[in-house]
Amino acid sequence: MKSKILKELKNADDYISGQQLCERLGVSRTAVWKHIKALRAEGYEIDSVTNKGYKLMMEPDLLTKEEVASCLHTKWLGKDLYCYETMDSTNLEIRRLAEAGASHGTVAITEEQTMGKGRRGRSWLAEAGAGIAMSFLLKPQIEAQNSSMLTLVTALAVNEAICETTGIRAKIKWPNDIIVNGKKICGILTEMSLQMDEINYIVVGLGINVNIDHFPEDLSDKATSLQIEGGRKIKRAPLAAKVLECFEKYYDMFLKTEDLSMLQDEYNKLLVHTDQKIKVVRGSKEEIFLSRGINHRGELLVEDEDGKVSEVSSGEVSVRGILGYV
Amino acid sequence: MKSKILKELKNADDYISGQQLCERLGVSRTAVWKHIKALRAEGYEIDSVTNKGYKLMMEPDLLTKEEVASCLHTKWLGKDLYCYETMDSTNLEIRRLAEAGASHGTVAITEEQTMGKGRRGRSWLAEAGAGIAMSFLLKPQIEAQNSSMLTLVTALAVNEAICETTGIRAKIKWPNDIIVNGKKICGILTEMSLQMDEINYIVVGLGINVNIDHFPEDLSDKATSLQIEGGRKIKRAPLAAKVLECFEKYYDMFLKTEDLSMLQDEYNKLLVHTDQKIKVVRGSKEEIFLSRGINHRGELLVEDEDGKVSEVSSGEVSVRGILGYV
Repeated sequence: MKSKILKELKNADDYISGQQLCERLGVSRTAVWKHIKALRAEGYEIDSVTNKGYKLMMEPDLLTKEEVASCLHTKWLGKDLYCYETMDSTNLEIRRLAEAGASHGTVAITEEQTMGKGRRGRSWLAEAGAGIAMSFLLKPQIEAQNSSMLTLVTALAVNEAICETTGIRAKIKWPNDIIVNGKKICGILTEMSLQMDEINYIVVGLGINVNIDHFPEDLSDKATSLQIEGGRKIKRAPLAAKVLECFEKYYDMFLKTEDLSMLQDEYNKLLVHTDQKIKVVRGSKEEIFLSRGINHRGELLVEDEDGKVSEVSSGEVSVRGILGYV
Repeated sequence: MKSKILKELKNADDYISGQQLCERLGVSRTAVWKHIKALRAEGYEIDSVTNKGYKLMMEPDLLTKEEVASCLHTKWLGKDLYCYETMDSTNLEIRRLAEAGASHGTVAITEEQTMGKGRRGRSWLAEAGAGIAMSFLLKPQIEAQNSSMLTLVTALAVNEAICETTGIRAKIKWPNDIIVNGKKICGILTEMSLQMDEINYIVVGLGINVNIDHFPEDLSDKATSLQIEGGRKIKRAPLAAKVLECFEKYYDMFLKTEDLSMLQDEYNKLLVHTDQKIKVVRGSKEEIFLSRGINHRGELLVEDEDGKVSEVSSGEVSVRGILGYV
């Protein structure tokens, strides 16, 4: 009910009367008042004027369930929504929830992440108030070998959500990083539980650097944040909700063909390094290729010196730009 | 301590004095007596004679922690051992334990399994006292694509454990069934949790039909038990412990090359249908081939009418014998 009242307050252009709130939500004046009081205690500034009603003057930047749910316009993703002040890792939490029977579309978000992980075990921490650490549970009826494409689907969703929410035009570094001005702003980590050849479930996790005003020296040429790039603080709950909304859209398009046929062109438009030299690292071996964008399976097409084009899949290689840091 | 006393009683050829037990295990006479009493309450018949000591006369057929641990001669597998009277599924339980941080080598065994699953979601239930439902947790440093071979490694281990414990010579139906006289006696189900391309953990689960004296009519031509085939009841704890012991041995050999190079010949000797016609089912398509045994990657080599040999992997096909039911 608290999140419903918050949603009404956010959607109202002006003051909304207590009576209207009661009628729309089917609760008593006392209940409305109780929830208004609770919202104020969480940091919401709500003006109340006799004969006019309530108006939301200022919202705190919180990733609470009320805040995220009040922005959420999805069909199925995030209907089960868990928001935490602190958590070891949202991917781990979704895996635990999955093992306890959680449904397709369950979402976990945390203000602070103490044991977050990126690819190859690199750490991806989140400080309270500064970022979005979010994971969601998928139980798709797809072939296991097609699941790695979901990382690319997520990259598209994050990119679009960032653009719509902040106006910042980010790029994608294949397969799973979102970058702005050559620096990383978001990482995506997909995990999967398999039974022989069949998918039990998939966990998609992502971390976005939002309101961080500077990075330590050793990171400042590799990482950036939406605040640094946009020059202003960004409300995180609407951004998190928009990522989920965009994911639903792109996921539907992925499911139609169980590949990236319908998303390949859009992904390639956002891809960095296209037609440029990249270094492909396979174990201890490094090779230089020209990057030629992804195919419909999400593999990166690379061209060697003799003009021969081959595919590399995200499992076997790591790719680095020759110039710059990404 | 109870399992240590049980182990001493089992290893003793004759009566063992209370004094000896105290000295070997470093506990008081009162403690020894307390544990003897507890063992008797569980169904162990322990004779005690003044001036001679204790002797184990009869052991109940239990899959308790004491019973399994007292038979276990492994280096790492089963050092963390969980035994349950009833459980939804030991694979699920190991997955839950894994998500809660359990170690490599953790084992879960249950007397009764209420939601057991075989491949492709087929149910695999276990009735209390009649079978072994056991799963274990592996956290290997191997390539994810090599993990499916662990199913074949497990088949070898179960086969050897059955032979050593009961004298029954079983066979293997590729990739993961143990059969006796053309009927299934054990199924193996491997599950895996992946982070992008890296293994979080692997769960190997198996179910063995042990002391079942008959099957319902619709199953009696497809399934059998060690009791039916051997004509006597089998103690389950030593068999479960032997499976773990054999698995350790074969797992070490697998790890040396990260494939089945060292195990391929042994596996092929046990394989049914070799040089016989089999039906390979790929989705809705069925084809007839001659089975030619596995290669070092655990793939089944099949020969078509023109003598052309190709490989099939367990993920993509299901194989049926042309004659008989397996």
